[in-house]
Amino acid sequence: MNDLKDRHCEPPERFPGPMSPADRDAMLKQLHPDWNLDADRGLISRRLRFGNFHETIGFVNAVAWIANREDHHPDLEVSYNQCVVRFTTHAVNGLTLNDYICAAHVDALFD
Amino acid sequence: MNDLKDRHCEPPERFPGPMSPADRDAMLKQLHPDWNLDADRGLISRRLRFGNFHETIGFVNAVAWIANREDHHPDLEVSYNQCVVRFTTHAVNGLTLNDYICAAHVDALFD
Repeated sequence: MNDLKDRHCEPPERFPGPMSPADRDAMLKQLHPDWNLDADRGLISRRLRFGNFHETIGFVNAVAWIANREDHHPDLEVSYNQCVVRFTTHAVNGLTLNDYICAAHVDALFD
Repeated sequence: MNDLKDRHCEPPERFPGPMSPADRDAMLKQLHPDWNLDADRGLISRRLRFGNFHETIGFVNAVAWIANREDHHPDLEVSYNQCVVRFTTHAVNGLTLNDYICAAHVDALFD
C-alpha cells in the first residue's frame, strides 16, 4: 500500500460502513501521534498550534484546499493561535479510509 | 454615536472591565437578531449558514480580514455549510465595546 498521503479519497458510497475498531487503530498509527481517535463519536482530531492568527488562517486555507480537492470536509475549531481539525465520514456515521487519507494530507503540510 | 459598523476597536486596556448587563443588552439590540448573548461565558455568538464549503471558507476569510484589521479575533466553529462566530474580550474576561463593533462588521458583510 502506498503511504496514506499519496492516496486520494474515494466516493463514500464505496464504503459499506464504518471501519472496524482494529482497522481504525491500525490506521491511526500511520498518522502523526497528535491525532486522537474518539471511538464513541466516530472521529479523529488533531490540535495544531500557531504563532498568531495570520498563521492559523493560512493553515485553515491549506486545509480547505485539501478538503475541496478530496471532496471530504473536516470540522474546524479556529481560534487566535490554534486550530482543531476533526474528520469523520457522515455518509457512514463513522470513520472510513477517507478520514485517514485527509488526515495524512494535513500532516504532510508540516513535513 | 455612529453606527457600530462605522467604528473601530480600541486598545483593550482602555476598558476598565466587562460591560454592565444593561449595556450588554442595549448593545445586543444594535446587532442582527441572530446574535446570542451568553452572559455566563461573557461572549456573543452568531451561527451563519452557507450553500457549500467554498462559501463558508470565503466567509471565514472575510471575518479574518476584519479581525486582523481590528486586531480583535473571534473563535470560529467551521463546518461544511455553516460557521459559528464567537466574540469575547479575553483581556477583561468578558464583553467590551470591541466585541459589538466586530460583530457589527460581520453583520455588514451581509448587508
